[in-house]
Amino acid sequence: MDQPVALSDQPHQHVTFADGMALECGARLARLTVAYRTYGTLNAARSNAVLVCHALTGDQYVAETHPITGKPGWWDQVVGPGRPVDTDRFFVICANVLGGCMGSTGPRSPRDGSAGETSTPSAPTPSPPWGTDFPPVTIRDMVRAQHRLVTHLGIARLFAVIGGSMGGMQVLQWAADYPDMVFAALPIASAAYHSAQNIAFNEVGRQAIFADPDWQGGRYWVSGRVPARGLAVARMCAHITYLSEQALTRKFGRRLQTAPKDSQEAISLFGDMFEVESYLHHQGSTFVSRFDANSYLTITRAMDYFDLAADHGGDLASAFRGTRTRFLLVSFTSDWLFPTAESRSVARALNRAGANVSFVEIASDKGHDAFLLDEPDFHRTLAGFLSGCAAHAKL
Amino acid sequence: MDQPVALSDQPHQHVTFADGMALECGARLARLTVAYRTYGTLNAARSNAVLVCHALTGDQYVAETHPITGKPGWWDQVVGPGRPVDTDRFFVICANVLGGCMGSTGPRSPRDGSAGETSTPSAPTPSPPWGTDFPPVTIRDMVRAQHRLVTHLGIARLFAVIGGSMGGMQVLQWAADYPDMVFAALPIASAAYHSAQNIAFNEVGRQAIFADPDWQGGRYWVSGRVPARGLAVARMCAHITYLSEQALTRKFGRRLQTAPKDSQEAISLFGDMFEVESYLHHQGSTFVSRFDANSYLTITRAMDYFDLAADHGGDLASAFRGTRTRFLLVSFTSDWLFPTAESRSVARALNRAGANVSFVEIASDKGHDAFLLDEPDFHRTLAGFLSGCAAHAKL
Repeated sequence: MDQPVALSDQPHQHVTFADGMALECGARLARLTVAYRTYGTLNAARSNAVLVCHALTGDQYVAETHPITGKPGWWDQVVGPGRPVDTDRFFVICANVLGGCMGSTGPRSPRDGSAGETSTPSAPTPSPPWGTDFPPVTIRDMVRAQHRLVTHLGIARLFAVIGGSMGGMQVLQWAADYPDMVFAALPIASAAYHSAQNIAFNEVGRQAIFADPDWQGGRYWVSGRVPARGLAVARMCAHITYLSEQALTRKFGRRLQTAPKDSQEAISLFGDMFEVESYLHHQGSTFVSRFDANSYLTITRAMDYFDLAADHGGDLASAFRGTRTRFLLVSFTSDWLFPTAESRSVARALNRAGANVSFVEIASDKGHDAFLLDEPDFHRTLAGFLSGCAAHAKL
Repeated sequence: MDQPVALSDQPHQHVTFADGMALECGARLARLTVAYRTYGTLNAARSNAVLVCHALTGDQYVAETHPITGKPGWWDQVVGPGRPVDTDRFFVICANVLGGCMGSTGPRSPRDGSAGETSTPSAPTPSPPWGTDFPPVTIRDMVRAQHRLVTHLGIARLFAVIGGSMGGMQVLQWAADYPDMVFAALPIASAAYHSAQNIAFNEVGRQAIFADPDWQGGRYWVSGRVPARGLAVARMCAHITYLSEQALTRKFGRRLQTAPKDSQEAISLFGDMFEVESYLHHQGSTFVSRFDANSYLTITRAMDYFDLAADHGGDLASAFRGTRTRFLLVSFTSDWLFPTAESRSVARALNRAGANVSFVEIASDKGHDAFLLDEPDFHRTLAGFLSGCAAHAKL
């Protein structure tokens, strides 16, 4: 990809289900489009498929250059030839989540259910988009949309489902809802519910978007001005929660971006001063070119709703009773967004359910983001677990 | 106070220094006004004065009904008759910080240095306010303004200087800059520098204010529309950092504000859903009635600049070498904004400097806010330390 393209002009590989899909909230999507990417080759027995579930701001471009940003795939250290999720061995599928903005049905989709997913760049949108009238979706709805895709691809059982953060929520939901379709489940840096603190941070992000006059009640396609500043503030706030204090200190400390302050510089109160500020500005401003504000609202809300135990009478073990799925839970010591304690409580519930479960806490000072970064211990853990499972599955 | 009044109409007890004050940045304020409150009686020897330093969004109304909100003083559990800082025994002084918005010189003050501090309600402002042209101030500048006030009150030595959070930064600065004027110093839930993570959270708040079109480059007095939404988002984000995850979970968990969700409610995506969201909205909206956005920018920046060791050749112990001040450092186990480790490193520097230092970590799950809340162990610790010091000081 020589030239990054705009969010709205980007075509995506996809499948459309003309019969639509009912949502947990009671609404029904007249049509359902799932945009996805695959890597590697499905074997003759159709038994080597691995579904990767992406996080809040991720997408289906796991292991290839991103069509909008031109950057490497978000998990190209984990997924690819010779990587822990080895595409020489496995057939990897990743779908943009329901409610997303990279081709799957979401707030940017035409509200009349027409084929709004553009197949050619700059094709006119045939009907106004849903915007904030897009029905609230849940993690279970996202998983049901992925289930449609997997079935469409002719796959009766996934060898593994893997994902970090919100992706890990989807993994848990897959294992709970389709136990016979999931040989191995790997929820990484995740939890079985969203905590009050996490809901609070999401709400700050949403309020920042609502406060941007360019949000225009969510109908920003009319004016063509997107709520870039609000979305950037949301991203900046969230980004802090992805890192650890140690990581921020190691990367930036209290270093100034410019020459040591003198009285002249100190007087320019609102310029970039600390490196960490400049870094946050960059995170905010690059994000808005690849993400849709209404999708951010929809997906953060889906995370907030997630509470797998509550959906099973308050007992998380009931969600997994009798499961034959093999689980690997991974957490990172410095992750304060999805702390180890939350993975441990999932492990305990799986133990109560009599499940086959491994739980590894990786020592890292990189915070929640560690699951996306170069963490050799983590990658060895994944590779080892998947190899063991592959032997059991006679792959 | 029967009727809360607006920020701009509120007169405050104050003193004005017509000779102004030079600031660390090199700028000079032509006049300096310090608004303050006192409680209790100064003894004949003028030896029983306690200076209380307030935090980012605090003010001088420590132990009495707040004139704008009508709520109790922010530290009325700590300061008052029979309280740990006993106003039957001590003469307590608290000044609004330089850069603040409750009567001390700050961004709302007239830029020409005229007597803009209103002495009667609704008096016209004689010259346009400084706004964002107000020079950047530092914690040391705040302390120098307090020093002017203390001297003006005829006090040669303070029995104690006490404050939490940014107030604790001022306490450390007092002890470093005026060691012979401080018999006892009590920095609570504080640190000798602002961390990268804390700078990052402050920057998110500032960006939220900048993103509000009603901020108008800081000249919002022209239109009369204040950047209420941006300031509210800043407050919401900061407020999460004042609490612990445990406190948020205990107070709100995942409880919904309204009846259990059904499909109709779920469809109203953007209403109040979780109690924690409603609480944050309340925190944000009440804050804007009592605080000025430009002051928020100025004061957060002062916190970010604070690095006492850097001002002393990188060695915090040098800031206190030879001091005879008695120190009590207090931290709270669940405070992640100013964690125990930061108080401990101050204690170590004081030990290296040969200072007389006590350090108490209070077990609390209330987060940074614990210093403002009902924490009997904390209050007993303060009372005991102050009694011991009073005996040494022959009070």
